[in-house]
Amino acid sequence: MTLLSIDRANATTPPWSDVVDAVSNSLAETAATRDEVGGTAINERNLLRSSGLLSLTVPADLGGLSADWRSTLDVVRRFARVDSSIAHLFAFHHLLLATARLFGQPAQWRPWLEQTVEHRWFWGNALNPLDRGTTATPGEPASGGGYVFTGRKTFCSGAADSDRLLASAFDSNGRLLIAVVPTARKGISVIDDWDNMGQRQTDSGTVVFENVEIERGELLLDPGPLSTPFACLRPLLAQLILANIYLGLGVGALHEAREFTLKSGRAWVASPAPSVREDQYVLAHYGDFWLALEGARLLADRAADLFDEAWQRGTALTESERGKVAIAVAAAKVSAARAGLDVANRMFEVTGPRATTARLRFDRYWRNLRVHTLHDPLDYKVRELGDWALNERFPTPSFYS
Amino acid sequence: MTLLSIDRANATTPPWSDVVDAVSNSLAETAATRDEVGGTAINERNLLRSSGLLSLTVPADLGGLSADWRSTLDVVRRFARVDSSIAHLFAFHHLLLATARLFGQPAQWRPWLEQTVEHRWFWGNALNPLDRGTTATPGEPASGGGYVFTGRKTFCSGAADSDRLLASAFDSNGRLLIAVVPTARKGISVIDDWDNMGQRQTDSGTVVFENVEIERGELLLDPGPLSTPFACLRPLLAQLILANIYLGLGVGALHEAREFTLKSGRAWVASPAPSVREDQYVLAHYGDFWLALEGARLLADRAADLFDEAWQRGTALTESERGKVAIAVAAAKVSAARAGLDVANRMFEVTGPRATTARLRFDRYWRNLRVHTLHDPLDYKVRELGDWALNERFPTPSFYS
Amino acid sequence: MTLLSIDRANATTPPWSDVVDAVSNSLAETAATRDEVGGTAINERNLLRSSGLLSLTVPADLGGLSADWRSTLDVVRRFARVDSSIAHLFAFHHLLLATARLFGQPAQWRPWLEQTVEHRWFWGNALNPLDRGTTATPGEPASGGGYVFTGRKTFCSGAADSDRLLASAFDSNGRLLIAVVPTARKGISVIDDWDNMGQRQTDSGTVVFENVEIERGELLLDPGPLSTPFACLRPLLAQLILANIYLGLGVGALHEAREFTLKSGRAWVASPAPSVREDQYVLAHYGDFWLALEGARLLADRAADLFDEAWQRGTALTESERGKVAIAVAAAKVSAARAGLDVANRMFEVTGPRATTARLRFDRYWRNLRVHTLHDPLDYKVRELGDWALNERFPTPSFYS
Amino acid sequence: MTLLSIDRANATTPPWSDVVDAVSNSLAETAATRDEVGGTAINERNLLRSSGLLSLTVPADLGGLSADWRSTLDVVRRFARVDSSIAHLFAFHHLLLATARLFGQPAQWRPWLEQTVEHRWFWGNALNPLDRGTTATPGEPASGGGYVFTGRKTFCSGAADSDRLLASAFDSNGRLLIAVVPTARKGISVIDDWDNMGQRQTDSGTVVFENVEIERGELLLDPGPLSTPFACLRPLLAQLILANIYLGLGVGALHEAREFTLKSGRAWVASPAPSVREDQYVLAHYGDFWLALEGARLLADRAADLFDEAWQRGTALTESERGKVAIAVAAAKVSAARAGLDVANRMFEVTGPRATTARLRFDRYWRNLRVHTLHDPLDYKVRELGDWALNERFPTPSFYS
Repeated sequence: MTLLSIDRANATTPPWSDVVDAVSNSLAETAATRDEVGGTAINERNLLRSSGLLSLTVPADLGGLSADWRSTLDVVRRFARVDSSIAHLFAFHHLLLATARLFGQPAQWRPWLEQTVEHRWFWGNALNPLDRGTTATPGEPASGGGYVFTGRKTFCSGAADSDRLLASAFDSNGRLLIAVVPTARKGISVIDDWDNMGQRQTDSGTVVFENVEIERGELLLDPGPLSTPFACLRPLLAQLILANIYLGLGVGALHEAREFTLKSGRAWVASPAPSVREDQYVLAHYGDFWLALEGARLLADRAADLFDEAWQRGTALTESERGKVAIAVAAAKVSAARAGLDVANRMFEVTGPRATTARLRFDRYWRNLRVHTLHDPLDYKVRELGDWALNERFPTPSFYS
Repeated sequence: MTLLSIDRANATTPPWSDVVDAVSNSLAETAATRDEVGGTAINERNLLRSSGLLSLTVPADLGGLSADWRSTLDVVRRFARVDSSIAHLFAFHHLLLATARLFGQPAQWRPWLEQTVEHRWFWGNALNPLDRGTTATPGEPASGGGYVFTGRKTFCSGAADSDRLLASAFDSNGRLLIAVVPTARKGISVIDDWDNMGQRQTDSGTVVFENVEIERGELLLDPGPLSTPFACLRPLLAQLILANIYLGLGVGALHEAREFTLKSGRAWVASPAPSVREDQYVLAHYGDFWLALEGARLLADRAADLFDEAWQRGTALTESERGKVAIAVAAAKVSAARAGLDVANRMFEVTGPRATTARLRFDRYWRNLRVHTLHDPLDYKVRELGDWALNERFPTPSFYS
Repeated sequence: MTLLSIDRANATTPPWSDVVDAVSNSLAETAATRDEVGGTAINERNLLRSSGLLSLTVPADLGGLSADWRSTLDVVRRFARVDSSIAHLFAFHHLLLATARLFGQPAQWRPWLEQTVEHRWFWGNALNPLDRGTTATPGEPASGGGYVFTGRKTFCSGAADSDRLLASAFDSNGRLLIAVVPTARKGISVIDDWDNMGQRQTDSGTVVFENVEIERGELLLDPGPLSTPFACLRPLLAQLILANIYLGLGVGALHEAREFTLKSGRAWVASPAPSVREDQYVLAHYGDFWLALEGARLLADRAADLFDEAWQRGTALTESERGKVAIAVAAAKVSAARAGLDVANRMFEVTGPRATTARLRFDRYWRNLRVHTLHDPLDYKVRELGDWALNERFPTPSFYS
Repeated sequence: MTLLSIDRANATTPPWSDVVDAVSNSLAETAATRDEVGGTAINERNLLRSSGLLSLTVPADLGGLSADWRSTLDVVRRFARVDSSIAHLFAFHHLLLATARLFGQPAQWRPWLEQTVEHRWFWGNALNPLDRGTTATPGEPASGGGYVFTGRKTFCSGAADSDRLLASAFDSNGRLLIAVVPTARKGISVIDDWDNMGQRQTDSGTVVFENVEIERGELLLDPGPLSTPFACLRPLLAQLILANIYLGLGVGALHEAREFTLKSGRAWVASPAPSVREDQYVLAHYGDFWLALEGARLLADRAADLFDEAWQRGTALTESERGKVAIAVAAAKVSAARAGLDVANRMFEVTGPRATTARLRFDRYWRNLRVHTLHDPLDYKVRELGDWALNERFPTPSFYS
């Protein structure tokens, strides 16, 4: 594992390291099978619950592990090597916790986080800002400023089997309202309709809201979504999570390919090399793979460090400070996506045709990367980098930038 | 269909055109479903049998359609757009017929081809020259020079549900013996063990030979495998078939992507374009796709024309004439493989994430291309082109060159 | 020369073949030196004059050689292998002759072409439609409808030492007027101010017009610029010329690299190969180079054939027929530009550092390609291909499309 | 400068920062002109002498600035942005100082370094281990173990106008002997024969040795060349210097392109963008450029940090520790070379044709990168990375690994 390690250099081993290893190994055992089956990974979700890692980013004074984001993303990356669906659910759980902290008041999120630790809550997502399928109407006067959410939301990763849900809807002024509610709230139905070519166990299906009553205190109104530079860290965390999942997938693919080449590879009949391990073309592919992943790793680590700094700055964070993080995150994301896709696509050229047997499901690296790298278009991330390089403009904050 | 047509420019429509259309359309209807299911495509194989297209390359005086190779490959490409497994089985059937003609005597292959027309035989493959798992031992003296084949062969595309089989084995001197035998011959078992990430209905599984008696007249001994420049056209036809399947897959992927973009695509929120059809990045991807496929198409057409010329030369064909065809075929193959893989990988960047739903199975273009382009390493094909460009050396004939 | 020949396959040798060879060889002898010196290539221009090749595209009944465009472009390509500046001047001379035919009346261009043959006129260019630096005002009434041109034009390739000039200016309505005039006409000054990093002997400098009187009969008003589908072939010919120059440059670079590798190359100390000729990475580069150029060659040949067909159609040419040629030409141009740039950039990786000595001036391939491929942006050519592939739209005719 | 800064993040400004700025600005003023003229940059060499920066890496107790390698490479990179020839001479001066420290004894190099500070010596190179053109024969017995060097060495960067020379020759056993001698030593002639397409002022010409007497104490025999893991840091420093020069060149090209686009760029006529600054394709190129350089920068910085750590380890450095640095350096080099070449090649697509005027000499970025990236083949560096990724093997130490 040291060979292609993407873990932090010289870092002290975090106390949760053994737990992460154990969960990783457990996920690896069934990942290929579960990729075939799809559906909700109840066992793995419960494994995460019982691992205590769902409280990784919760502050210590609320009972959590107080991990910084870079360490958290190391865990995401590690899981993504073997199971990028679970890595996604795990990472988005923490993104949703962060969302409460960035968009809401401590009086709101402190109890939520405390209970998350206590009850081992798994948070799920119903916040797809491009999907305007849910509407929010003011509740009865007796509701004290509450709302009623109605409609459907797509791409609701991790809503299935979740304990708390980040729900969202647009009010009559087009304002996006975001609330934290029990998934079991009356009127909420999580539909089991996610069947995709990749990321098959992210349960990114539909959630239906039928006159769901939202209390005032469940709404993240102060400071509210994307309201301040600090609140605008939310999309950057989301993008950084994606980058780390891509990177983990790429490293996973490289590991898998390497193991196959070493154990089962054969030099091509026309190769002058004594073994596949010395074949010049095979080595060139591996060199390319490693270099691309190593470059992406450094970009991702740097972005995580900058993100942690910005997170520490809290509400003092300026637009320009936030902008620098945005650029670093965009760079990491594009680089990891390209590296990952390239490795997942070309890994077969260093393994040969026998590695395509369905049993191995090596194609899942490409399928997972291909699906996940479409979250928002890479072309427009590159454009953001270009806008910075040419015009010295930071990305305009949005749920994708 | 004219837009991205890869059919011959200005060509007269061949008489079998309507049949090809009908078969294509029929294949298209169930291709995605059958990709999911895998296994032997009995219905589609019977559709080909009843279409008469299995006699496409059989000379007219034997009852066939006397199509030249370029026309035949046009059909292969056409089928590959919608179903590359069936395209492969169809093409390899004709490759096997050609093998009999290239390695054997007219007295052998003329009746075989005649009966192929008459009985609508489908030929299958058990010739994997890299797999030395079968041995040939001389038969009883009474067999008049026959042999007994024993062992296992892998990657036997199209052996399932075949009527005739191209079987092969190595004698005690390491000489490869090839025979045409009824698949139903005693001792032959076609194993249903092909389960792959792509090309899922090519039945490229294992064939087991248990003391299979081969008659002298079934052996392709004169001139025998790769014995003359003309006989050495066999691997070139195989490679040319691959190129055309890659090309068909690439064009199929482009068509599929295009239809999705036009019907369901949306410009990204950050796009300045009024619609996805005007998005500069989307157009750039489409431009790249089209250009790569068009270049590959011209290379493939040119290679097919040169191949037809060489085929016409018959036994008068010289090494150098054969060498020129080899270079043209290698160029077509590399170009088609690269173009196809690129389109199949990047098509999702012009469709967006909704095109990844499992129902559409758009990933099958990449899976099929990825598997099929590993038949023999592209790196070594490029090397052959380089050896030509630098050293003016033609590829040394082998079953892959 | 047959090895990497880009000449027409199976074509009959045209009667001017020996002359082309002789001119080529002569150009090659001094090309590197002249690249260093820059300036007007008087000797080479006179060599072209005396070669008779300036009448290559002139119809036989006007004393010319009646070559079709594909044959003419073969010559352009051939010249470009060794001297892309001269190739450009030569090709643009014929483009300007064609411009007179496409935009003017036979009564105008027939005598011009006849005299071109008789007096060995070399035509030069002062038509840069993006440069609005010249204005046309109606001449004295006595001039019978003539105009007066005043101002400056940049990028006037081949104006120096020319006998006839295609001059242009915008009238007060913004209409572009194009005229064929003697370069020696009073008021015309060709400035010797072209000093560029590439294409150093194309004399693409400034032409100054000081009250230059233009006769009515010198104006190409009927049908006029870009007025009909047939007239709109003009930019396609210009683009096709560019494509063939790029291709010639790429082939020239490959030849140069190859000769160096074979004569002076050495395998790297870490190479397992017995000689540079067997080095796997060197062969891979050569394979890539050759394949890219071969693909571009087929696209260029196909575009030339389609162009010739369209030219034969004359004024009967429809928009859609013209559109198809436009797409084929765009494909050829992008492909040739990419292939050429790649070879010119990477050729050094197969020659090693000793090939960078200034004496050899091998960098001129890249410099020439780099400059010439900026004529109009490749990105927007790819966009045109994408617009075709996605939207089935032909490029809107302009001086660049 | 902050925008595309490649300087260390959060680093404290080193005390020599203003001097570096001043030298940089001075170099920039004449860099284009000197690229045209070539030859020895006497003024600029003297500027470096008087700047005190030639003692940058000399320990403080010997009168130097005691800069670590990362800081030194920052200066190299900075110079390379505007003048990669001078950057090379400057960097190699420090490489040669380091060579004395790595291959020789403190009793040797301490006085040399002290005098380097005192007399502002500029060191030059005559160590080309691939060129076996010089021989070493034992000197007269009276020489006390000295040698006589005879022959010619090519690619002797910075030998012209140098004060001390790292000279080398092979003895009769094929052992490489390296000595530090006054360039003015009798028998040494530095030939002014460097005329190259790039890196034109590195004076990388020939040095002739005619019976040059070498004293015992001038020879670097203990521990000698590449004798210990610590001594084997020498080639890594050389490679790391190359990486930083490539990176500086790439950043310089990006800056130059950016300035041109902002001041003189125009959106293409077919662009839907209101200005070139908003053109989607232009932004995509800039995004690619920036991302590639940023990735290379992180790899180079990391490699420099690892190198500094290894340098601090001194003779305690193990093979495996050295191996890790070697991999990091190789990654930085390949990445910087690719990024730099790509920017230098494509920068013209964001500036348009007017940026190709000879006056600007923008082509020098490509010419300099192209020449310098051939120092040793990139293909074999990628192979080293592949050997690491697949086989977990460190590069075998040599003068290039």
